[in-house]
This record gives sequence, structure tokens and C-alpha cells, in this order.
Amino acid sequence: MAAKTEDYLGIEDYKVIGTRPIRHDGVDKVTGRAIYGADVQMAGLLHGKVLRSPHAHARIRSIDTSRAEAHPGVRAVVTVADIPVPESAIVELGEGPTNILYLRANVLADGKVLYEGHAVAAVAATDPNVAEEALELIEVDYEVLPPLLDVREAMAEDAPLLLEDLTTQSLGEDTGKVSNIATHFQHRFGDIEKAFDEADVVVEREFQTGTVHQGYIEPQNATALWNPDGRLTVWCSTQGAFTVRQQVAALLQTSVVNVRVIPTEIGGGFGGKIRVYLEPVEALLSRKTGQPVKMVMSRDEVLKATGPTPGSYIRVKMGAKKDGRLVAAQAYLAYESGGFPGGWAEPGAMCIFAPYDIENILIDGYNVVVNKPQTMAYRAPGATNAAFGSETVVDEICEHLGMEPLAFRLMNSAKEGTRRADGPTFPRVGHEEVVKAAMESDHYRSPIEGPNRGRGVASGFWFNVGLKSSASASVNTDGTVSLVEGSTDIGGTRTSVAMQLAEPLGIPVEDVQPVVADTDGVGETDVTGGSRVTFATGWAAYEAAQDIIRQMVERAAIFWEISVDDVVFEDGTFRSKSDPSKSLSFKELAGKLNQTGGPLMGRATVDPQGVGGSFTMMIADVEVDPETGKVDILRVTMIQDAGKAIHPSYVEGQMQGGTAQGIGWGLNEEYFYTESGELANASLLDYRMPTCLDLPMIETVIVEVPNPGHPYGVRGVGEASIVPPPAALANAIYRAVGVRMEVLPMSPGQILETLWATGGDGS
Amino acid sequence: MAAKTEDYLGIEDYKVIGTRPIRHDGVDKVTGRAIYGADVQMAGLLHGKVLRSPHAHARIRSIDTSRAEAHPGVRAVVTVADIPVPESAIVELGEGPTNILYLRANVLADGKVLYEGHAVAAVAATDPNVAEEALELIEVDYEVLPPLLDVREAMAEDAPLLLEDLTTQSLGEDTGKVSNIATHFQHRFGDIEKAFDEADVVVEREFQTGTVHQGYIEPQNATALWNPDGRLTVWCSTQGAFTVRQQVAALLQTSVVNVRVIPTEIGGGFGGKIRVYLEPVEALLSRKTGQPVKMVMSRDEVLKATGPTPGSYIRVKMGAKKDGRLVAAQAYLAYESGGFPGGWAEPGAMCIFAPYDIENILIDGYNVVVNKPQTMAYRAPGATNAAFGSETVVDEICEHLGMEPLAFRLMNSAKEGTRRADGPTFPRVGHEEVVKAAMESDHYRSPIEGPNRGRGVASGFWFNVGLKSSASASVNTDGTVSLVEGSTDIGGTRTSVAMQLAEPLGIPVEDVQPVVADTDGVGETDVTGGSRVTFATGWAAYEAAQDIIRQMVERAAIFWEISVDDVVFEDGTFRSKSDPSKSLSFKELAGKLNQTGGPLMGRATVDPQGVGGSFTMMIADVEVDPETGKVDILRVTMIQDAGKAIHPSYVEGQMQGGTAQGIGWGLNEEYFYTESGELANASLLDYRMPTCLDLPMIETVIVEVPNPGHPYGVRGVGEASIVPPPAALANAIYRAVGVRMEVLPMSPGQILETLWATGGDGS
Repeated sequence: MAAKTEDYLGIEDYKVIGTRPIRHDGVDKVTGRAIYGADVQMAGLLHGKVLRSPHAHARIRSIDTSRAEAHPGVRAVVTVADIPVPESAIVELGEGPTNILYLRANVLADGKVLYEGHAVAAVAATDPNVAEEALELIEVDYEVLPPLLDVREAMAEDAPLLLEDLTTQSLGEDTGKVSNIATHFQHRFGDIEKAFDEADVVVEREFQTGTVHQGYIEPQNATALWNPDGRLTVWCSTQGAFTVRQQVAALLQTSVVNVRVIPTEIGGGFGGKIRVYLEPVEALLSRKTGQPVKMVMSRDEVLKATGPTPGSYIRVKMGAKKDGRLVAAQAYLAYESGGFPGGWAEPGAMCIFAPYDIENILIDGYNVVVNKPQTMAYRAPGATNAAFGSETVVDEICEHLGMEPLAFRLMNSAKEGTRRADGPTFPRVGHEEVVKAAMESDHYRSPIEGPNRGRGVASGFWFNVGLKSSASASVNTDGTVSLVEGSTDIGGTRTSVAMQLAEPLGIPVEDVQPVVADTDGVGETDVTGGSRVTFATGWAAYEAAQDIIRQMVERAAIFWEISVDDVVFEDGTFRSKSDPSKSLSFKELAGKLNQTGGPLMGRATVDPQGVGGSFTMMIADVEVDPETGKVDILRVTMIQDAGKAIHPSYVEGQMQGGTAQGIGWGLNEEYFYTESGELANASLLDYRMPTCLDLPMIETVIVEVPNPGHPYGVRGVGEASIVPPPAALANAIYRAVGVRMEVLPMSPGQILETLWATGGDGS
Repeated sequence: MAAKTEDYLGIEDYKVIGTRPIRHDGVDKVTGRAIYGADVQMAGLLHGKVLRSPHAHARIRSIDTSRAEAHPGVRAVVTVADIPVPESAIVELGEGPTNILYLRANVLADGKVLYEGHAVAAVAATDPNVAEEALELIEVDYEVLPPLLDVREAMAEDAPLLLEDLTTQSLGEDTGKVSNIATHFQHRFGDIEKAFDEADVVVEREFQTGTVHQGYIEPQNATALWNPDGRLTVWCSTQGAFTVRQQVAALLQTSVVNVRVIPTEIGGGFGGKIRVYLEPVEALLSRKTGQPVKMVMSRDEVLKATGPTPGSYIRVKMGAKKDGRLVAAQAYLAYESGGFPGGWAEPGAMCIFAPYDIENILIDGYNVVVNKPQTMAYRAPGATNAAFGSETVVDEICEHLGMEPLAFRLMNSAKEGTRRADGPTFPRVGHEEVVKAAMESDHYRSPIEGPNRGRGVASGFWFNVGLKSSASASVNTDGTVSLVEGSTDIGGTRTSVAMQLAEPLGIPVEDVQPVVADTDGVGETDVTGGSRVTFATGWAAYEAAQDIIRQMVERAAIFWEISVDDVVFEDGTFRSKSDPSKSLSFKELAGKLNQTGGPLMGRATVDPQGVGGSFTMMIADVEVDPETGKVDILRVTMIQDAGKAIHPSYVEGQMQGGTAQGIGWGLNEEYFYTESGELANASLLDYRMPTCLDLPMIETVIVEVPNPGHPYGVRGVGEASIVPPPAALANAIYRAVGVRMEVLPMSPGQILETLWATGGDGS
């Protein structure tokens, strides 16, 4: 059924929700018994490798695969010519219209390569070494073109075109204008010019943020078997098995019912494991050979040829009155799309000023193709770049006004009824509560002292998504329940979803066994992304419980030989309203199933509209070494509105994970390109993510402002914690050494350059 | 929901039902890609072997496993002491109360061994050869006891007791009498003595039938992994994953929700793959080692230590009037139980006189423990033994009366309202139609000529069972449907079940992808047995389709913005009653799901009561070589009432399979024991099942008398074809060489002995 909004039940007391049970998949994960994609083995398995472009931008004059095909260990070679050409470029892939021609050309280059590492051809061979060797036998004749690596260069009127047929889209309209600008949109309300004129303090700054990768530890991998009956099975590490199914079916022009995607466990995704890379290529190799084909990307391939999140060029201008009231905010967001259209300026624009109630706003957003891998989502995609700009500008305004930054945020806070830049007004949201919790936190009340030390704060926002989820559940005669759902479990959602089934049934969550099904086993379920699983799949589990309760009430009526209307279910007990002696617990009534009609299954599907955004706040204390530019993090606290924390440990885990990633983005991580467009740091040694040695204990404070659009008040919590760290760190660095940082990452070199540019002493 | 009886829809025209689509799992099966239990591999896999008793009957004085445990390749050894002792002997295992103490003692002998091959201990080792070697290091001190191998000897008042605590059960009552007779029951109605007195022709004969095995080609096998979190996963070849789950959970005293049974494909079962043998033993070995443990039985183990079907001693006495009316029938059925109680005299009694309308009946049934493996179901269990007696006696009565055997059967045929020996009266059944179809068959109308040739006929009956089934189904946005069900697919039921989902939805069965789920993936579903899957799981699929249609009607109403009452679904099309311009096919409306609330799942559970029995008739032409006693089958035809043949090819396949097995049972197969109780023919070379060289083309005639208790009129068809062959062959042999056979198998030696005993010429 369609889920309703305004569905918060207002329950105060929970038996299961809010507790911290052990995750159902915990032992499998810590003992190494859980099956990841790289563990997939089968008889007759071939191993595939992908030939990738050494050039960032080139035309492919020809590909000669004949020598590779003649290699005795090679079983098949494919190029883009093996992928059928779609009848229409735009197809509906469940989560929205997709240009399937671009997806096809990203999977295997079609005439042009658009980034170093772009897939050109693939080989299936008897072992991975033979496949690797055979790649060298494929002859590709490239006409090398100059690369465009900077978003502003690519936007220039006279810039060479990456895609000759690309026209700028504007909020769903095709402008017809051919350029590298894939999309341009504008959100405007109020009178921005007048507001800036009347503001007492105006700060404007420009920012650049590097291209960064999600940095999941498990590389992309997949195995595909195309049966002679036309049925394709894919085992892969993905955030959304159904999404892989849709993409593969669309690319290969078959029905989704012919594609079974079996999701293996996932070693991190963070937005990067949604688009397909290997799966359709393996499917084609399997069809040619009749054998299953497996591929596992190297780290180099992951960094060069999957979907990092955009680097960006951003300008932010904000104005406030002397009394501290924010009156005007303007942003220019130019985001990299990578080699194909798409991008994250839209969500950046939705989030950038979201913490504040501002009456005059203008945002221009651009997604621009450049010769880098096609960008992909990364935890609150677009919002972190944007918040780096807005939250450092807010800090500077506070400085000018002489206002305490949290008090300023509280005064200007968005609240229920505030209009967001992109149009909608907020339902009940928790930014005020988050700011207050920060004010009251032990961290914020503790002084920070010493030279080159400083404290910064920043707010963050992510709107979250609902999307489609399905669940079914079967009641066993001993009162336990088997739950089937379709959401990849990244952060403990087997348990957080199962808890939302156990709570209404009045049983312990240990009596529920949750299973993540493959695409044949449950109704359509969208990606694990957008902080949606505990919200939406949890809701599906809640609704499946309602379907079970309705049927159990009927069974109680049969058992007691009374009318269904006479049966009530309260506090885990079925009772006769008219005869108090008739009472059965859920477990007891489950034991009567075989006497009252046999087994019992519940099912539910949801596409909930009542999604509730989540606000975060980071407090960061740093010490900057002015000699080396190195930033040491002394203490950090992340505060987040979870709506209702179903499983507080997993909420805290998400908060800590997002904070750690935000710190990496803020201080160290970036794609470093040579002038000819080669990625110079395509390894985790050189692409420097924070390790535990770089991070302090990440303290967490969960705030609970129930989301009115969910039965248990859940907001998604997976993403918003990544948003404030770069800005909070920049603000802390400013307090420590007096320089306003405008470039991410704020690496030692960048800090030194900024210090030197401002006189070495922050003056 | 509980399924209703009297639910036949009376549909005349079908689009899907009655067609012969290619089975969904066909390519997997013929290419060897389907995963059987022996294909299961995983990291750290240990291999188990079972030490088995060399004695048919012995007391175990002691077991010393210390030397085996000290073997460097051995990881664990278990005996019955490792299986917890249940608090109560009788537990409810879904399909009825079970003595768990006996199941435990069959899995690993407890104090006594009761048959050669009885499991005594088991070893898990690094490879199968080491495990085999280590078995020899286990020292078992046996006190050998004399074996009881004959059912009549075991019934003797002074017979030594196999189980000291065994008391005779009588139709659910405990008589308290200690003996080897596990059960004795009686069905009586009319005045049998008077009826025999008044009969004009009375024939009484006694029969013996050998112990026979189901002869599935794939041996028992299983792999078990007991996780440290208490969760056990079992991969196995079984007719019922949920049944394995129940048995294993009960034996190991854990909740069913902690046991996940993943059914691999099955290479035949025929009733023999329902009880657990290896699974609990492996679970214990896995718990001790922390590693997965795999076992595959040898053929020798399958024959010696699984569950063959009972040999029996039977007496049948029937009386008829001169006009051909059968007036009295009496039977004495003494069936082997093997080493533990249980047995199949009850269904034998339900079936023996079922084809006939007889007013005076007396049946005594006995199940008796003997020193053979505990018997198990085998396709219409109990009925074939019984029909061998009754249908040869009927033939002899026909001879005395000078009546044509089919005309006699038609005259005396059971029909709607006839009381069956065990009490119930028949709903609409098809014995008359089956007899008429036999009369009209090309085979029966063709003459049989030549020396030593003869034609025999016999009727058969199996009542079929309903039991519990569950299904869920998800509608994809391209109008295809993913179907999840829990029934092991032995004879093409993925397709016959999917067809009953496709028909009501008005879509091709190729648009349905059926999946057999594991025990976590769907509601409880009982064994694939009792000819029930196409009947009951098909019904669940039909009901899941109704659940889908109800929701699709709501979606149509949302899409058209009209009331639900205004939407009707007919002939695969949703229509507005009030506005004929509003019309969408199933596929078209499926394409609107995301606009009308998101995904859509249906689910259903059934425990149907309206099971309809199935009658069969065999016509067999044989030639007997009086020199060697060898019987050549010249031509056979099997006629069966399928109710409605959902997929005629699979109905024919069942009929041919049952006929082939009945022929093997009739002519060749038997357990041959030495005097000390050792099985002397424990290989498929010596236990002689028919090969294609022994069999002619098995002709089939499907009769369709709809079962009033199923929406599509389905009766189960899996079993009843095995019932008539031994009797039909015996009748044919009589016509060929003039001897009435009273012993199964009617092997060349047995025929020669019978010929010689009657003067070598049938006189």
C-alpha cells in the first residue's frame, strides 16, 4: 500500500525501539563467514579484465581485438558494439529518467574516451593473469584531445566540447544550447539585490573543493552468468540490487524478470555503488562464452573509473543586519559532472542555506562535464561542498557582528514552516534542538586554550529521500518471525528494520530473522542511499506487521469462535473485548496457527512521502602547526537530529562514519591530476583517507525531534554528518591561526600557502 | 487465509492452464548448471562420515572415540550423547506428533542398533578419506542379538522385543500392551461375516511383498554450518525444507528461526527425502568445530540406512454375488516399520478397496518393528502393497464369475457418495471415467495374441493430501511477476505453480519467474509429497494472484481517480464499469505502479481441505518365458484422473515415472537379507531397478474429472500411477502362463518356483 504522511504515532514508550540489540549479521561479519562478491566461486568461472583508456580525452579511431581473441586463454572480447543500441536515449529506471546512451558509453566507450580509465574493451579468460595479458593485445588507435579538467574552463564559451550533442537542461527543460554545461538551474525568492543593499554586513567568498572518492574499502566486483534460456544472474556488491537489475535489463534490452541480481555483502558504498560498471560487460562476456564471468576491480580502477563525487567551484555571498538577522544569501555552485552529464549541484542547492530562515535567496547551480570519471553520489552528495562555502561565510559574518556562532545560528534557525531555497517548506525539523544540544554539550562548555588552537562549529543538512521499499514476513508456529526485505544492509539495517517489525508485534527483535533477498525474492526496493532504509524499509516492516496483526486477529476470532470485531490487539496480547478470560500472547496465538487455517504471511510495499530532513552540527577543536601546516584534531563532537533513533548504536556509528569521512574530505583527500589528465594518486597510499591515528574519539549527541511523516518519527541519519566537518574545521583553523580557508582539502601545503599568502601570521 | 473447499470455479476456457510451456528450470537442469547438494562448496569445509552398525540387532556396551579424536586429520567426533535429551518424547512437528526420542535414536543409535547400517557415531575430518579412515579407529563393543526380519515372526507373542518400551497404538489410543506391534487398527462396517456367507464367489489369498527402496539417483547429502551466534544453516536435498527445519530444531532444541534450510535441487525423493539423517549430525559436528561440515551418502548407505518402504504380509478375502456385485471385502495388512515405529498400513487400508462400492468391509492393519531400516514413504505409500492383494483377488473373482475385468470394475465402481473403508465418503471422483477410458483405449481394443502372452488390468487409488503452502509474488513495472514459493520442485512444479498465478492475472507464464525459497524466504510450506504441490502450492499461487488483483484494482482506481467499486478486472483487463474508455491491461497498469503508490506484492497461505483423490488404471501386456521365468513387457498404458491437468506433459511424466517404479517393484526390486540381517544387495547393480531396456514406451491417457475442492479442479497426480502395476502385471502373468502370483517381486526365480509348484504349466 502507499504509505501515508503525517503518520507519526506519538508513542512514548517502546520495548524494542531505542534499544541496542546485537546485529543479526554480526557474527558472520566478524568471523569472515559473510559472503562478499570476491568470495563468489563457481564451476567454469572465467575471469574478466577491462582495457581502460590511458588518455583523459581522445577519439577512438579503431579498436582491433583480433590478436586478443586469438590468445589461447581468451574466451571472449567485447566492446561497445556488443551492447545493443537503445531505441530511445531516455528510459525510466525506477528512480527517474536516465540517458541510457550515456550509461552505455560509460560502461564501454563509444567513439570517444572521456577520462583516464574509461573502459574501452573487456576480455574474459581462463584466469585473471591471462585476461590481463590479453588486454595488451587489443590495439586501440586514439586521436588524443586536450583534456578539460577544471569546471570553469569547461564552462567557457569557447571551450572544446566533450559531448557534441550535449544541450543544457534546466529543471527538466531542454534549453537546446550546446555546451559542456549539462544543467543550469536557478532558485530565487525575495528581492536579493535589495536585501544585500540593506544588509549591514555582507561577506562574499569563493571556494574550490577537490574531487573526492567515497573510499569504500571493498572494490567494485561482480560475477554474471547468462544462461542459454536468456536468464541472467548477477552476483555483485551494490547499494541496490533492483537498481542494478533495472540498469542491466535496460542496457541489454531484456525484461527485468530475466535478470536476477543477488546482492552479496557490501564493504561500503556511500553512494558509489549504485551505477553499474562491470555487470553489463560481464553479462555480454558470459553470453558469448556460456560461462560465468567474474571481475574484481583493482584499487587503481576503483579510483580512476568508478564515480567519485564532484569537485566544485563555489561562490557564496551572505548578508545580515546588525541585530544578527540573516537577510540575504546567494550562491553560485558549479559542480563537475565528470565525463557524462549528471551531478550534484541540485542537492547542493537544496541544502546550502537550509539551516537558516532567510527571506531573500538566489542560487545558480551548474553541472559541467569535464574529463574526469562520471561523478556519483557520496553521502549527502553536493551538500558538503556547498556547506563548506556557506558555513564558513556564516562564521565570518558572526565574527563581523561579534556574535557567538551558535547563538547566531539559533537566532536564524530554520524551523517548521521555513521555506527551503528550492521551494518546499519545512515540516517539524530539529535544527534549533541540534544547536541547543551543541550549546549544552560538555565539549562546547569546555574551554579550548593554548597557542594555534581553535574551535569551529558548522551546521549541516540533508533532506533525505523516501523511495520504494517492500517487505514480507512469515510467522513461525513458535512465535518467531522470518522477515524478507530488499535493502542492502550497510549500517546495521537488518536490525533497525527488524526492530520496526518486532515493536508492533510485541516480540523481541531476537525472535525476528531478517534476510536481505535478491531481486526475485521480494518486491521492488530502491537503493540503500539517501538515508532511507531505516525510514522507508523500516516503514515497510512496520506495515508488514500491521498486515500480520490483521490476520492474527482473524485467527484469534476463529480460535475463540467469536467475531473479528470482538478481538483487540494491545501490548502484544490478543484479547476478547467481551470476555476478558480470552487472552493470548503473540507467541501463544502463533502456536494456534495450524488449528486456525495454516501458515501466515504479511507483506507491505511503501513509497513514503513524509520524509524528514536531518540537521547536524559539528564542534571541532584543532591545533595547527604553523611550521608544517598540519592540522591535529583535538576533539570533535557530532550532534544530529535522528527523529527517533531506532538503534542508537547504529545512529552513532553513522554519525562517526560521516564525521570521519568529512574530516578526510576537509583535510586530506583529493584527486590529483597531471596536466594531461592522468590521476597521479590512484592508490590508498597516495589518496590519503584518515586512519584511526588521524582521528580522535568522535563524540556523538543524538537529538530526537520526531519526524511527523513516519510512524516512529524516524529521520534518515546516514548522511548529514558528513556535511559540516570541512566547514567546522575551516572555522576552527581560522580561530587557531587566523586564515580563512577557501580550498579543500585543507592539506598542510594548502594551509601553508594560505598562511604565507596572508603574511604567514594570519594577518 | 484458510482455503475453502467446494471452490471449483468451473472455468471452461484457459489461456495458460492445460498448455505445455517449457519449464523455467529446464536449461539449468540439462546443462548441469543447477546446484545439487554435492555441488555445495565453501571455505573451511570439513567432510563427515558416519560409522554404521555391521549388525542388524545388537546392544551397544560402549563406544570409544578417543583414538579417532586423536587422529591428526579429525576435527570432531559425535555420538548420540551429543544430541540433547528431549524433555518430552512427543513433539508436534507441523505435520503431526512425532516421537523425537525415536528420531534421535535413528539419527545416532542410543544403546541399541536396530538394523545393519544404523548410525552409531560420526566424524568430521579434513577430507572424506581421512574421515573414512578415522571411522575404523572408533571402537564399539556390541552385544549381538538375533535379528527379527519377518513381520510375522516379529508379531509372535514370544518374539524378543526390539524396543523395550514400545506399546501398541490403536488409532491414537495407547493400548499399553508392550510388543513389537507399533500400531494396530481396524476399520469395519456392514456385517462382513453375513456378507461372506451370502456371497456366491469368495476368493481369499495371502501375499508377501518385499522391502523396496525409492531408488532416487541422487544420494542423501547435506552441508551444515552452525554459526557461533547459534544460527544454523543447512544446505540439503530434501522434499521439504521446512520439515527439515522442524526436525533439526526439535532435535537440537532450538527455535526454528535459528535454523535456515536452503534446499538444493533434488535428484529424486519419492517420499524418501523427508526424514533427516545427516543434517542434525553435521550440525553437531559443525558446532564442535566451528566449520561447515558436508556429507554425501554412498549408495550402500542410501540403501542400508535411509528409509525404504515396507515389505508386508497381506491377506485379502473378497466376495461377490453371481450378478457381479462385490458384497464383502476383508484385508489383513501387516507392514514392516523397520527399526522404529511408524508405517504405512494406515494409508494401505485407506486405499485397498477404494475403487469399489462395497457395503461390508473389515480391515485389520498392523505396523510392526523389525530389524530393517526405519521405513519411509514411497509414492502412495502402503497402497501398492495393498492393491497387489486386492486387485489380483478381484481379477480372480472376475475369472470365477466369467466377467470382463473392466466391466466388473465399472459395475462396482466407487463414485461420489461411496463410503471409503476408513470412513469418509467420496466427493466427485473419477474411477468410472478412468475405467471407461481404459475400455476405449487403443491398447485395450487391440488384441493380444501368441503363446505365453497375457493382458492384465488393475485399478489404483491414492487419496492425496492438502497440507500447508505459502507464496508471495511481486509485480514488476513491465508487467512481469516474480513468484516465491516453498515447495521443492521435483516434477516441474515451478511451472505448474506459476501457471496458476499467470492464469488469473491474464499474463503468459513466461512472464512469471518462480523461485523456490529457503525457509527464511517464504511462509511455512509442507513437504513435496502426497501429490500436493500442484494442488496446494498452486492454490497458494492462485490466491496470491487474487491478492495482487485486489491491490491492482485499487491502483486502477487511483490512476483513474474513480472509486474502487467502479473498477472491474476481466480477461486480463482492468476496466471502469461506468466509463468504457478507461481500460488497462495487466501489463499497462503494472507500468503505472510507481505513479499510484509504489511497488506491489501479493501473498497467500493455504491449508486446503478440499483434496481430491486420484484413480488410475493400468493395462499391461506381458510375455513370460516359461524356461527362465523372465517377464517381458510388451505394452503398457496408464490411465489417470488428473482432475485438471495443469501442465499435461508433467502429468504424463508423473504417470510414466510411477508406472516405471511400479513395474520395478512388481518384477525385480527387493531388499535381500542374509539370515543374520545383512543386506546382500546394497548396490544398484544388485538392487535391480528397471532401466530403459526393461521398459516399453509407457502410454498415458489423462482423464479430467475436476476436483470440486480446487479452483481449477486439480487433483494430485504424483503417486497413484505406482499403485496398479504389480497387480496388473500379476494378472497379465496369470493370463500368460496360468499362475496366480502371491509374492513380490515376481522375479524370474519366483515365477519359476510358482510355475513348478503348480506343475509347471499353471494347472
